[in-house]
Amino acid sequence: MPQGQPAVVPQDGLTTRQRRNRPLVMVHTGIGKGKSTAAFGMALRAWNQGWPVGVFQFVKSAKWKVGEENALKVLGASGEGGRVDWHKMGEGWSWIQRDSEQSNEEKAREGWEQVKRDLAAETYRFYVLDEFAYPLHWGWVDTAEVIEVLANRPGTQHVVITGRNAPAELCEFADLVTDMSKVRHPMDAGQKGQRGIEW
Amino acid sequence: MPQGQPAVVPQDGLTTRQRRNRPLVMVHTGIGKGKSTAAFGMALRAWNQGWPVGVFQFVKSAKWKVGEENALKVLGASGEGGRVDWHKMGEGWSWIQRDSEQSNEEKAREGWEQVKRDLAAETYRFYVLDEFAYPLHWGWVDTAEVIEVLANRPGTQHVVITGRNAPAELCEFADLVTDMSKVRHPMDAGQKGQRGIEW
Repeated sequence: MPQGQPAVVPQDGLTTRQRRNRPLVMVHTGIGKGKSTAAFGMALRAWNQGWPVGVFQFVKSAKWKVGEENALKVLGASGEGGRVDWHKMGEGWSWIQRDSEQSNEEKAREGWEQVKRDLAAETYRFYVLDEFAYPLHWGWVDTAEVIEVLANRPGTQHVVITGRNAPAELCEFADLVTDMSKVRHPMDAGQKGQRGIEW
Repeated sequence: MPQGQPAVVPQDGLTTRQRRNRPLVMVHTGIGKGKSTAAFGMALRAWNQGWPVGVFQFVKSAKWKVGEENALKVLGASGEGGRVDWHKMGEGWSWIQRDSEQSNEEKAREGWEQVKRDLAAETYRFYVLDEFAYPLHWGWVDTAEVIEVLANRPGTQHVVITGRNAPAELCEFADLVTDMSKVRHPMDAGQKGQRGIEW
């Protein structure tokens, strides 16, 4: 919970209000728990502001994070707060022809292409690019291009990117980077993941 | 996202299923962002399982985290998923006489006393003790007592405790500890917190 005054007042020609409302790029990385979970927690705040929220889930399994997905869909449809769209690579992305047989690499690129279109159109005000650090790390999507697109995105669009091994250039570019470190995990003591906790 | 097999299969006389469903104590600590946010994200999964969720917010201001609060209240009242009760120290706790003039230390103790009663009664299946690490760190609530109560809680009750400076004994006792480290924060660049992002 950050409090008080910023350490430095930058000479950027912006008023405090302009600086305060500057759109952010955020990265949650590291080997610990909570990277995606914290991103979806942030989405609750965005929803509460009435902002349209777009989730792009760059994972293979369509069943991962079904708890967060159901919750955000119920919120988005509640008539309060903002709209929520949840896009899943694991289902082949909703805007793609169902009969296409794409590799995960191609799917990841298709996801990024849609994010680019939505950023250009200002479709959402808060984006969760969940597990997007992986296709960047693997070189499936070009990190330099992502940084350029994010740097030049119009309007007030916040973007949070999650996943282990976020590229150093992306972390350097981002406004906020949090590293989730594992201190202790039940799997160390022989416990497997469980319903309601891990998914 | 933990995957695969646990490193060790303990000789604890439990079946895999028993071990899998063992209730957890989780701690989110460290100076970075996302400690509470990840806890509320976890609450989405618990809600999605239909579990009753109890949030105890050990903070002074009743306005903090209003986004998460509104979202979880809408979810709890949606008719889907589990019930959600949100208790706020910043409003003097709902079960306390309104005209009582208590110190924050007394309020924190009152909060813990209610958590004890709810654990004994198995009121919830998922507890968020938000910012509870602070009264423990300050010695307002006795860490050894908390550990004893948690160790002996009945049934299947998961508990997540957030806040900086979680006591070492608590981290030693917990099943899962995640340390959120700050790598980069917009306040370092002179930016203040903003609506929809920080609250």
